[in-house]
Amino acid sequence: MNRKASGIVTLITDFGWGGEYVGAMKGAILKVNARCLVTDITHQINPQNILQAAYVLQNSYPYYPPGTVHVVVVDPGVGMERRAVALETEGHFFVGPDNGVFSGLLSGKGKVEAYEIADRKYSLWPVSPTFHGRDIFAPAAGHLSLGLPSGKLGPRVKGLVRRESPRPEETKKRLGAQILWADSFGNLTTNVTQKDFGRALASRPFQIKGKGWKIDRLSRTYGKEKPGQPMALFGSGGRLEISVNQGNALDALGLKPGEAISILWG
Amino acid sequence: MNRKASGIVTLITDFGWGGEYVGAMKGAILKVNARCLVTDITHQINPQNILQAAYVLQNSYPYYPPGTVHVVVVDPGVGMERRAVALETEGHFFVGPDNGVFSGLLSGKGKVEAYEIADRKYSLWPVSPTFHGRDIFAPAAGHLSLGLPSGKLGPRVKGLVRRESPRPEETKKRLGAQILWADSFGNLTTNVTQKDFGRALASRPFQIKGKGWKIDRLSRTYGKEKPGQPMALFGSGGRLEISVNQGNALDALGLKPGEAISILWG
Amino acid sequence: MNRKASGIVTLITDFGWGGEYVGAMKGAILKVNARCLVTDITHQINPQNILQAAYVLQNSYPYYPPGTVHVVVVDPGVGMERRAVALETEGHFFVGPDNGVFSGLLSGKGKVEAYEIADRKYSLWPVSPTFHGRDIFAPAAGHLSLGLPSGKLGPRVKGLVRRESPRPEETKKRLGAQILWADSFGNLTTNVTQKDFGRALASRPFQIKGKGWKIDRLSRTYGKEKPGQPMALFGSGGRLEISVNQGNALDALGLKPGEAISILWG
Repeated sequence: MNRKASGIVTLITDFGWGGEYVGAMKGAILKVNARCLVTDITHQINPQNILQAAYVLQNSYPYYPPGTVHVVVVDPGVGMERRAVALETEGHFFVGPDNGVFSGLLSGKGKVEAYEIADRKYSLWPVSPTFHGRDIFAPAAGHLSLGLPSGKLGPRVKGLVRRESPRPEETKKRLGAQILWADSFGNLTTNVTQKDFGRALASRPFQIKGKGWKIDRLSRTYGKEKPGQPMALFGSGGRLEISVNQGNALDALGLKPGEAISILWG
Repeated sequence: MNRKASGIVTLITDFGWGGEYVGAMKGAILKVNARCLVTDITHQINPQNILQAAYVLQNSYPYYPPGTVHVVVVDPGVGMERRAVALETEGHFFVGPDNGVFSGLLSGKGKVEAYEIADRKYSLWPVSPTFHGRDIFAPAAGHLSLGLPSGKLGPRVKGLVRRESPRPEETKKRLGAQILWADSFGNLTTNVTQKDFGRALASRPFQIKGKGWKIDRLSRTYGKEKPGQPMALFGSGGRLEISVNQGNALDALGLKPGEAISILWG
Repeated sequence: MNRKASGIVTLITDFGWGGEYVGAMKGAILKVNARCLVTDITHQINPQNILQAAYVLQNSYPYYPPGTVHVVVVDPGVGMERRAVALETEGHFFVGPDNGVFSGLLSGKGKVEAYEIADRKYSLWPVSPTFHGRDIFAPAAGHLSLGLPSGKLGPRVKGLVRRESPRPEETKKRLGAQILWADSFGNLTTNVTQKDFGRALASRPFQIKGKGWKIDRLSRTYGKEKPGQPMALFGSGGRLEISVNQGNALDALGLKPGEAISILWG
């Protein structure tokens, strides 16, 4: 193992835990590096939700030691023209389809180097047209976890696909936002970032209204409100969340992923 | 690594697998100890169910080698006044909120030493008000897995919070019990322990009645009854379970977690 | 560790992630071999679905390095007469109940050696009548992962239980097939194998009809069709799948596991 590899590979997929997919991918990593620590981040990205995968990646990879290889397989275009890529930035390594799952890295501060995974010496053969996770991304990750330089996988590439959540629309009267997804507690993550709107929300009166409920201030943590109370706070991932203390906002508030919400100023 | 650390960290949380929470916690452990074997016990404790977390901990940790660090994050009071603690008993280490998740350890035979996790040298900084799992418990576990003495994390503390399932009420006519939760097979765990009531149930005629079904004896294992047959047995965790052979008691018997059941003597 | 052991143990169970079962099993492996890489394939086999477990095993184990120990616990007959066995074939090791979960190995090309797990020196004691996963299979796997020869666990046995999915019925007019199960995307796996029927389906006109939908050709990969389009393809496991591009066939097509489908020739 070279100095730069931590020997850790993380997995973010939309495979779910139900079939053989996760297990086959892990095997294909361990066949290359049998002492690799293969670490599940999640396999429950909403199916084909590239933006959610990008968000989970951005909010988990920086906590790992440099030299870790992060595999992201949310890949509705598997077997089509999209490229298979390996990226490096700030000492971390990334493997997955070039479809936007790495958008967060591209808009970050660090310099990103990207390579197409083209050399079939580092893939299983034959490559299944429906399962590049197992046949291309997993073995590439195994080799990177042993210290293979990314550049050995194939040629340098540029112009990676970028996709972003719609940004909130701010007017004098309101901030037009969107519910992106729900976590397992039913907390609703929005597209309102702390960086862009945290100060505004903390310093200015606002209201969010729904059927039979109203939120008119920012909370700092869940337990600050009464059980069952709707609340808004910036979660650990830096986005505004709509939550219910010791309850489930998704079930209780009549809001669903994809829906618009209005934050009314004043 | 000192002699006492096994290099293994286990995780029990109510985060679900759906978001970035599990992955970020694992990263924060591995950043401290990159060769740590981070082991998922469950992330599907029912949200905020402290008693269930305590039960799962009691029925899993003794099977691990001594020197293992067990992290329990079911933490509805995150960011509030509850203490963050590290415990030692019988050669095992434990990290989590002082809210009752460690109740089983406190009522066990072994001597328990407890420390507040106070020294921020062993935390991520800044500490998120909503995610101590990542910022306090995970790095503390990483350090303990490398052999850091628990006492380095902060001062010795006493008077830890204890919470217990309600005990069954026994009268001459009946044992008044409660369904606590269901496992993935739909087996219903009750608050009736083998230690307290096993002999009574095995040696005395009894009946449990529901809508269209009746149980009048104790089974030894699932396959002993006909498929679809309701049955009662003491499960591997030492609690009375209501089950259906090759079926799902939660779906089939009209019983739900939280409900009372009567075990009628004679 | 002897040369033949990879130090990796994989797990396939129907326990779900919800209780203490997965965690207790992992502990019982790690107590024997604290540096073992315990790897989750799935814990979400449909309850008691032996054929699905056998399928997942066949489609995951070959991707692991030789010397890996694969534990399969889908065990409706736990505590009854069925044998506990350890198998070896093509350099891989297997542990589980002799109830058909290893059927795929027995019909494969490699020579299979099987042993009954009988020596209680390699089990936890007392053995729970309901949880052999923890008390028998896990410690046996731990010892095998350290290089213990399978023959030390107990006597050589023959005549292992074989169970197979019903085979499709082919007539001049149609291929009568069956939906076996759904994956997390809602893709429906059938009992039609690529080996037996791949050439027929690729070379001969056919139709599969449902309520409001029709499939009349074989696709190569998911993204080839329009979003929402029903399609048929051979998945990475070599079985015919009914899918919906970027959709959920289980929800959309009115088909369920266990149901028959007709592939009409011509």
